[in-house]
Order: sequence, then structure tokens, then C-alpha cells
Amino acid sequence: MKAAVAGASGYAGGELLRLLLTHPALEIGALTAGASAGGTLGEHQPHLPALAGTVLQDTTAEALKGHDVVFLALPHGRSAAIAGQLGDDTLVVDCGADFRLDDPDEWTRFYGGEHAGTWPYGLPELPGQREVLRTARRVAVPGCYPTSATLALFPAFAAGLAEPDVVVVAASGTSGAGRSPKTSLLGSEVMGAVSAYGVGGAHRHTPEMAQNLSKVAGRPVRVSFTPMLAPMSRGILATCTALAVPGLTQTALREAYAAATEHEPFLRLLPEGTWPSTAMTLGANTAALQVTLDERAGRVVAVVAIDNLTKGTAGGAIQSANLALGLAEELGLPLNGVAP
Amino acid sequence: MKAAVAGASGYAGGELLRLLLTHPALEIGALTAGASAGGTLGEHQPHLPALAGTVLQDTTAEALKGHDVVFLALPHGRSAAIAGQLGDDTLVVDCGADFRLDDPDEWTRFYGGEHAGTWPYGLPELPGQREVLRTARRVAVPGCYPTSATLALFPAFAAGLAEPDVVVVAASGTSGAGRSPKTSLLGSEVMGAVSAYGVGGAHRHTPEMAQNLSKVAGRPVRVSFTPMLAPMSRGILATCTALAVPGLTQTALREAYAAATEHEPFLRLLPEGTWPSTAMTLGANTAALQVTLDERAGRVVAVVAIDNLTKGTAGGAIQSANLALGLAEELGLPLNGVAP
Amino acid sequence: MKAAVAGASGYAGGELLRLLLTHPALEIGALTAGASAGGTLGEHQPHLPALAGTVLQDTTAEALKGHDVVFLALPHGRSAAIAGQLGDDTLVVDCGADFRLDDPDEWTRFYGGEHAGTWPYGLPELPGQREVLRTARRVAVPGCYPTSATLALFPAFAAGLAEPDVVVVAASGTSGAGRSPKTSLLGSEVMGAVSAYGVGGAHRHTPEMAQNLSKVAGRPVRVSFTPMLAPMSRGILATCTALAVPGLTQTALREAYAAATEHEPFLRLLPEGTWPSTAMTLGANTAALQVTLDERAGRVVAVVAIDNLTKGTAGGAIQSANLALGLAEELGLPLNGVAP
Amino acid sequence: MKAAVAGASGYAGGELLRLLLTHPALEIGALTAGASAGGTLGEHQPHLPALAGTVLQDTTAEALKGHDVVFLALPHGRSAAIAGQLGDDTLVVDCGADFRLDDPDEWTRFYGGEHAGTWPYGLPELPGQREVLRTARRVAVPGCYPTSATLALFPAFAAGLAEPDVVVVAASGTSGAGRSPKTSLLGSEVMGAVSAYGVGGAHRHTPEMAQNLSKVAGRPVRVSFTPMLAPMSRGILATCTALAVPGLTQTALREAYAAATEHEPFLRLLPEGTWPSTAMTLGANTAALQVTLDERAGRVVAVVAIDNLTKGTAGGAIQSANLALGLAEELGLPLNGVAP
Repeated sequence: MKAAVAGASGYAGGELLRLLLTHPALEIGALTAGASAGGTLGEHQPHLPALAGTVLQDTTAEALKGHDVVFLALPHGRSAAIAGQLGDDTLVVDCGADFRLDDPDEWTRFYGGEHAGTWPYGLPELPGQREVLRTARRVAVPGCYPTSATLALFPAFAAGLAEPDVVVVAASGTSGAGRSPKTSLLGSEVMGAVSAYGVGGAHRHTPEMAQNLSKVAGRPVRVSFTPMLAPMSRGILATCTALAVPGLTQTALREAYAAATEHEPFLRLLPEGTWPSTAMTLGANTAALQVTLDERAGRVVAVVAIDNLTKGTAGGAIQSANLALGLAEELGLPLNGVAP
Repeated sequence: MKAAVAGASGYAGGELLRLLLTHPALEIGALTAGASAGGTLGEHQPHLPALAGTVLQDTTAEALKGHDVVFLALPHGRSAAIAGQLGDDTLVVDCGADFRLDDPDEWTRFYGGEHAGTWPYGLPELPGQREVLRTARRVAVPGCYPTSATLALFPAFAAGLAEPDVVVVAASGTSGAGRSPKTSLLGSEVMGAVSAYGVGGAHRHTPEMAQNLSKVAGRPVRVSFTPMLAPMSRGILATCTALAVPGLTQTALREAYAAATEHEPFLRLLPEGTWPSTAMTLGANTAALQVTLDERAGRVVAVVAIDNLTKGTAGGAIQSANLALGLAEELGLPLNGVAP
Repeated sequence: MKAAVAGASGYAGGELLRLLLTHPALEIGALTAGASAGGTLGEHQPHLPALAGTVLQDTTAEALKGHDVVFLALPHGRSAAIAGQLGDDTLVVDCGADFRLDDPDEWTRFYGGEHAGTWPYGLPELPGQREVLRTARRVAVPGCYPTSATLALFPAFAAGLAEPDVVVVAASGTSGAGRSPKTSLLGSEVMGAVSAYGVGGAHRHTPEMAQNLSKVAGRPVRVSFTPMLAPMSRGILATCTALAVPGLTQTALREAYAAATEHEPFLRLLPEGTWPSTAMTLGANTAALQVTLDERAGRVVAVVAIDNLTKGTAGGAIQSANLALGLAEELGLPLNGVAP
Repeated sequence: MKAAVAGASGYAGGELLRLLLTHPALEIGALTAGASAGGTLGEHQPHLPALAGTVLQDTTAEALKGHDVVFLALPHGRSAAIAGQLGDDTLVVDCGADFRLDDPDEWTRFYGGEHAGTWPYGLPELPGQREVLRTARRVAVPGCYPTSATLALFPAFAAGLAEPDVVVVAASGTSGAGRSPKTSLLGSEVMGAVSAYGVGGAHRHTPEMAQNLSKVAGRPVRVSFTPMLAPMSRGILATCTALAVPGLTQTALREAYAAATEHEPFLRLLPEGTWPSTAMTLGANTAALQVTLDERAGRVVAVVAIDNLTKGTAGGAIQSANLALGLAEELGLPLNGVAP
């Protein structure tokens, strides 16, 4: 089977290619780009010598046709037009935000403009979602922060152990902000510094978290989300707390998480007493997870670490694509990371 | 006036000396150390050439006597014995935890062993505390995390705008963990990684935060605190949220913070729309602060950045010492930081 | 075929395991350790969940017997005793320094104590060395710095284009200094800082560089080597210059490098105008290489980037092991890296 | 006396202001900028709250007139026009390259366009230069790399201990590349990576190094210079080697360096066995220096650490300005740095 990558010169595109290069069932086809079209991949992804000479084509339906799967790693708002020109014989997996939200009002409120629609949501770990993805021809890959927060708290909500008052504070590496040059993302600005941004419900990933957790909880979940930029290239560490239901015990909480994760290939509940570090998951499709009950504060506290580019974007995309293509879900996806 | 520093070879001791070197009213006297005694300061603090040849003495009352102020930057549990041998003619400022907590049970629960007592708490920004410090002969310098969380939320609690359900998630640079060699603090382990630790109410700074905020609120405040280690040497960024009281508006919230900070020399409420970065405060005694009301989540979200070694330890210590010595509070304390 | 790893809890051991986990012809057998024996690998290498439950055995010949290949990642001086107890039916690949140097006097001068002997040197790119390795039963893996400097300059010396006056200045990530806790390697010390060490010919890798380049040049090569510690976990960037022979042209130089590298699976001569970054090779067994003639200074300047743990240690070890085991040299070794 | 800063929104401008804020004899006057004119300094230098409300004016002679000293921190090529409109009653200190080189051909070769002229060179440590600067009305501040390399090797050349064959390899923090957004300077690109650039004599600072060392040596010195970008915001660590003259001893070398540095306020020859780290000089105007003779390689190896923004730019500028204004050379310049 053949895979095309649109947006191959960016960070998400580069990570897709890194993973596809060792994927046993997917062959790399067309690579496309925007302003970088006409150049070679080697100019943009010098860590991928195997593809150094591949010429980047313009991102057109022409170039992307004839593949079994097309991965879109485009700026927000660009996916709908391209996808519309690709028939249902092509699986389209969108790493952008365009098709993630169910509610058009939420889309307009957070992204502006008109809602393009809703595609099957590419988080197989959500209850029931794996089956949905097996027959999908279109997949909306979750945002990196929503991936982390949803994986951290869905076991508590699915088991009815948490009240719908959630606080998520997550630190992300800078690659989550993309490759476009901005003063605030210069190395001189970000090294040695942690900063907050999009505070107070302003970040676009907030409604996506609320949507996911509300579905699992079966009632509206309020989410206070604060993202931080941390001085590292990759990784998200999300601290996610929810009010505990009355009478909750540490044992019951832990059992719920053990049950929810034990058959999941990429969810790793750490041994008790060990807390996640992004270093556990760099380059891997694994989410490292730990949970505890803070009895005095009356809160469930779950912490999750993922690589924002792997499980948070490109790895998650391939995981869903594997399902939709009838392949083994784990195919081509590293469980083990790179450390130190 | 003469100042001695006990624990001069560690990070807190080094920062005390950096600040004292430019303090116009305090002259540096004896420097003492534990295992490093007998060597010169230059071996441990090579960034302070002005003191490179000063010999480190053993940490004894003998060496520390005869100074107007003694700063203790010792491991927890060591301060009481030394302080007991220094008369009231000497101001003793303890950067350790020994005398921070009011409640002996909380001490035993979090630190183990017997409670040494309670000293005036060195956070002049707390309502009424500045006056207490003006006549103090003993000062307990706050922990670095409690400094950040208290400064972030005291205006909301003092103005009755927040309910006593608090979630604090704070990222700290590695200097907060001290200079003793541990595998988990090696550069190879911490660079490129954010990790959580002391989760679920286990961190020793949790009761100190609750103590401070409860006093301001006039009723018990529950605190869920999660610390994170971030790949930088210095700085704390704390995201602190509390349930908003019904009917709270953004305007009222902002006015309360403006009122609480406008006469404070080291609290800097940022212009609206600007969120704190630790880069704003590196090497400065300033706390950079911002607050907003998340209406959907029903939460006050305050974010504060400090330098954990300056406002969070050594700068805070000197600020309190200035007050207790009858000096201007700001003396010798940098308002401006070092960036990028 | 089965592989054992002695020293599995350190950085070199961890990298060997990361690579072996995807090696198609080598199965992981016994894992041994020193002080960490008795615990599980998961406590030390949390990025390798696939082996999290494997128990670490004591490093004894008993534990290591019965494998086709044993990789030793032990402190210097420990390999000889173990290797002596393993028969010639077992390939032994030593990542330590014990068997790298030919000259016993040089060994004693730089390492102290008695010389254990000399094993076939595991750098297949050296002229003639690939053939030696195909029949080897013992392999001495090169040091990380000598790997970088030798790969940078052997094409110039092999082609007779450089005089034997060499200056090497190389920056290394901190993982090269190992996992033992030392104050100077704490994150607080190394982040935000570049420092020099082992200057003036004192570093133990100096005679190994001279040995390699002298063999290629056919005459003694003098090497001035200065290592630097850089604030990153992995990677070496080595700037290597040698006096140019009279009349040398840029074209001749480039042709020599193109010829020396074109059939090498892991040497990548970059396009003209592109200079190496360690980011090109993180996690890969690739050496990224560039060279130019500085006509005014009369010097050949070659710069090489490698991952010190991959091509510089564990990847290099597996590359040589592949040859000695009769496998394809590239088997199980990533050509592409992880970025950003 | 009043000081204006042109280019106040950049990194050099910000560092000038940080230092001027505590300078006892210089008051801050007009601040000007290019594209940022019209905004406040707080938007660009949030670490300097003391000047947060100051409005940035356009960079015109009008705005800069009437000051005792004008510091220019402008892009290359912009200084001549402005300086020409400021009379000799104003001391003009140019942090740019325009007036550093003596030789117009070298200017044209490395910078292109026409040579603007030559101003007194702002490195008081160069033999005789301090006296020149005392009467200067125009000062060309040295480049950051040439500052480091010249300070490292001038004692050897002044004492006739080195042959004119020099190799300089220097790692710089990213602030040296300025604040203009470029993809290659994004945090995601530079964190975790060391890279080489401007190799083979191509970097513009090469002729400036050769000019300085040739003057001291009294004969042409050939310089092979390789700069590297390191993952830190500030600091340069330069390894500088020169062929030793025959018969040179370690004692004679060390004595020459001791003599050359003992009366220098900002040159700090470290105790034997201690090698420089940029962490020793962050935020300080100090150059930390060490030297040794590599007898086997026949080379003098000197290593120097500076803060590229302080001694390498803004601190050096103020040091020269102090001399030209008849002030004490050390005034307002920190000897001690910020660490860790």
C-alpha cells in the first residue's frame, strides 16, 4: 500500500516520514509542500537521508491521487478542499484541526470561519472508537494536548469516578508550535524559560478536550486548560485533575486505570510510585500514565507523558490509518523511545 | 552591617552572595560550609570571582557570631541548633523549611521528626506581614513553590473572589532540587524532558501553600499541588486556579489584583494579554503575574513567574532581612532580570 | 542468534538494547549489571517498556555464556576478566577502552595500570578494517571522540592530502560522561553552559585518534585535541583540521572525500554548502560529514556529526558485530534520525 | 551624563539597557528602534520592568542628539549614516561591524559594498589600546568571536611564544545570531543540537581576528576559524591554539599569561587545572581564561569563556565608553555572573 504525505517539510510531516520509513506495509509515495515545493526533502528534513533526494511537489489533488492513504499535515483550514477532491477509495488522515469538533458553534468560536464538518476521531483508545475507525475513510487526528488530557482522564470518567470539574495544565515542547519562524519561538527566547499562553479557556484545544471527556462521562465536563511552552523540542507532560466522586478510594481508582489500559497497546500505566517523564516516550507512540487520589484535596490527579509529534500527531495518525486499512494497529509504530 | 552566609557552597548560598556583593548596606562576613569547609569559595562558585579566595569555615556558632545578620542555607533540620546559639542581637534568616509551618502535626506528617517551632514568615506581600517582619529577629524564608502560589492567589482570596478549592501546577528549574549529585538530576536525564514528582499531595510545600492561603481566606483552603521538573536551571512558572465565587467578573478580578499589587515593589501585574515567562524574572527579585477569569470553567486562573533562587529563596531572604534591619525593603535587590 | 548485554543499566547499555529490540537477526538474551543487579530494567531504562520486567543479573561469565554475541558496556578495566572466561565460540564486543590501543606505553600513560591487550578495532570504515572484522571474535569498539575525528580526517590522510599536524575540537553531549552522579554533570551545571575539559593532550581519547590517523597516513600524526561539554544529552560535533599539502585544491579534496564515502553505508557526505548538525544524526548510526579547504589558512577543515551513543558506541558496536557474525553490515541500524 | 541606545529592541540593545540601569554615572536617555518604533520597550524587553513604559522612537539623528554617548546596536551598514550626523561632542560607540576593519579590501571581501572607515577599536586589553580609547570620540566595538579569540591568544603573541598558525573553534549561544526570526534559529532546531556554520574562512569575524593577532604579533597571523551554534542563549567558549615556538615551557607560557592579565580588571586567569565554562561569566563582563602547552602536539592551547552579549558586546561597549568619557573603566560593569 502506498502513502502520500502533504506538508512534508514541516515537523508533523517529517515525523510521519520517519515512521513510514520503517512501516512494513506502507510504501512512501508522493511528498508535497507549500512554499517549499520544488526543492528536495533533504533541504528540510536532513535527519532523513533515505529520502534526501525526493522532490517536493505542490500540494494538489493531482499529486495526492492514486495512494491508499493520504496524510495531511497542512495549516488549519486547508484540508477540506484537498480532501474533497480525493475519492473514498483513498483513506484521508488529517493531522489538522478542521474536522475534529462536532459542534459548529464551537468551531466558529475558537477557529473562526465556517465549520468544515466532522470526521471520525482518531483516538482508538476512546471507548468504542476503535470499531468506528476500522471502517473509516476519513480520520481527524486529535490535537496533541487533547490526546494527552483525554488519555489521562478517560478511565476515571468511564468508570464514573470523577466529577465534571477538570483542570488540565500541560507543558509542551516547542515543535508543537510548528516550523514557521516567529520571534517568540527563537531558541534564544525559549531556552531556559517556561511560559504560559492561551490561558483562561482561550486555547483552541480546550473545546476538543471537553468534547472527548463529556462523551465518556455522558454529561458536560468543564475544562480549565492552561498550556505552557517548555524548553525542549518534543514532548507533552499533562497534569490532569478532576474532583473525585465521594467515597473514592485509591484502590478503586487504580483498578479502573489498570482495567482501562491493560489491553491497550500504547497506554502504559507505570508501576505505582513512578511518575511520567517525557523522556520515557521520546520518539515512541507510547503514552506513559500514572494516577493517584489526593485525599486531602479530594481530587483525582492523572499525569500523562507523550511525544507530541508521535502519539500526539504522526504516530496517532498512523495508528488510526492502520485500523482503517485493515492492518494490525501497532504496525510500524515504536513502543520504545530514545533516551537519554 | 555585616552578613554571614552558612551553606555558601550550595545554590541558595551562591545566590545570597551574588546579591550581597552589590548590596549597599550589607558587607559580606563569614562564609561557612559543611563538607566543603576548608576549601575556597572559588572552587564552588566560580561565577563569583570577587570572592574566589575566601576560605569556607565550618558551620559553627563560633564562625557565625558577631554578624548583624546570618543567612542559613542549610539542609532541612540543621537550622534550629545553630540559631539557638546565636543571640537576639543577631538577625537569623533561615532559607530552610524548619520554621515555616505553624502546625506541628503537619510538620511531622510531611517532614518527619519533631517540629522545631515557628518563626515570622518571610513573605512581606502577605497582608499584615510586612509589619511583623519589621520587628522580627528570626525569619523563616518561604519555600520557592509556596512563594509562587501564594503570590498568585492571595489577591483573589484577600478580596473574597475565590472558593477554597485550589489547583496548583508548577514547573521548576533544577536548581530547586539542590546541588547534591543524584542520577535523576544529571543533565542527561533532565535535558529535553519535563517530569512530574511528589504528585497527589505528597510534596512538602503543599501544607505551606494551604497555610498561607487559608490565613488570607480566613477559612481552610484545599490545595492540589503538582510540581514538575523542567529543563532549565532557574525559574518557577506556577499555574494556580481556584473556583470563582458566583457572579465574579473579569473586571472585578483584575481590579482586585491591581489593588493588591500596585504598591508592591516586587509584584508586577503584567499588561492584559501578556502572560508570564520565567525569562522575565531570571536573576531578579520580581514576580511577574497575570490573572484571568475562565468563565466557562468557572475558575480564576493566575499564573506567576519567579526566579526560584532569587525571589523564591535568596532575594526573598534579603527582602525580609532589609525590613528586619530597618533598611529600605528594596535595597540591593534587582528589579530587572537577565535575558535572553 | 542471541545477544547478551553486560552493563544494561547505563547509557551505552540502554542504547544497545534500543537497537537490538528492532534488530531482525539478534534476539536479546541475558542482561547484566553491577550495583543495579537484582532490579528490573524498567527501573533504569523507562523508555524501553518492551523490556521493563526483565531482571538484571550479576555480571558474571555464567550469566553471559551461551550467547552468540556478548556486548560489554562496563567501566574501563573490567572487560578483560569477563572476556577471558568466554570462549571463542562467543563474539565479544567491548564498548570500553581496554583493548583499543596498540601501544602498551600509551595505555599506561593515559589509563594507568597494565595494558590488557589489543583487539580488532571496530571501525569498519578504516581502510582494510572491514575485512579484519569479518573474522574477528573479539572487537574493541572505538571511543566516541575518536570515531568522529577519524571519520572526519581519514579520507584526507588516505589520499595524502594532509600534513600530520591535526587540531580537533569537539563538543559532546553529556551522555558521553556516563550515568554516575557527579556534581559537575548535574542539569543545573550543564544547562546553558559550554565548558572545556581534558585540554592540552590530557584526554584519554587523544592517543586513539593519533593511532588511527597515523595508520592511515603511514607516518606519525600529531593531534591537539580539546573536548567540550555541550548542553545536550546526545551528539558529538567535531571540527577537525589538518595542514593542507601544498597545491591542494578544493576540487581534489572534495573528490577524495566523495570517493572515500560513496560506498560507505553510514558515512554521509553532505551537499556542498551544508554543514553538519548533531540534529541530523540523533538516534541514527549515520555520520554526517562535510569538508572544505581554507585556502588562506592553508588547512583542510572537516566537520562531522554523530550520535555519541549510536555510531559513537552502541551502533558502532552492532555494526562490527554484524560483520563478525556474517550478517549484513547495516542490519538493525537506523540510517534516519529523530528530529526536531 | 546621558546615554542613548539605538536598536533598543534587539538583544544587544537590551543588554546595554540592563547594564546602564545600574551604571552610576550614565543616565538612560532616548531609546530608538527600527520596525518596533512607536511601541514601548516593555513589549520587547519584558525582563526590564524599570523601562517598561518607555516609548521607542525612530532611529534618527534628531532623537539621538544631545546625549553624551550614543550606543548603536544596529544592523550592519546602518551606523555610518547616523554617526555622520552626530558631532564630536557626542561619543558614538558602534556595536556593529562597520568600522572594525582597517583594510578596505578585507571589508569588501567579507561584507560586500564599500568600507565606511575605521574607528578606534574597543578592546582596551590590547597592548596600547587603552590609551587610544581615552581620547576617542568614536569607538568600534569588537565582534563577539574576535573578542574571545583575541583575549585568548594576545598574551602568547605579545610575548613571542606562538607561531602565526592559529586555529580557533568557538561555540556560541544563539543570541549572537540576533533576534530576527529565522527557521534555523527556532528553539525546535537549536535545542539538543550543536552545528557548525561559516566554516573554512567564510565567517566575517575571521579577518578581524587575524587583524588583531597580527598587530600584536608584529607579523601576519593565519587564522582558521570555525564557529558553532550551541544550545544555550548566551556565552562563547573559544578554543584557540597556535603552534608553540621551539623550546617553549609550560612555566614560561603561564608566566606570560599571568603578567598579561594581572592588572586587567576583566581578564581572569583561572587557577591551574580549572578550565573555563560559559557558566562562569553569564551576565558578567569577565573573560575567564586558561592556557596550557600541549608538548606532544607542539601547540599553545588557550580557552576563553565570555558572555557574548556582555563582554562580547554591550559590556565591552560600556567599558570603552567609560574610558572615552573619563570614567573609571570598571564603572557599572559586573565582575560576577549569574549561576547556575
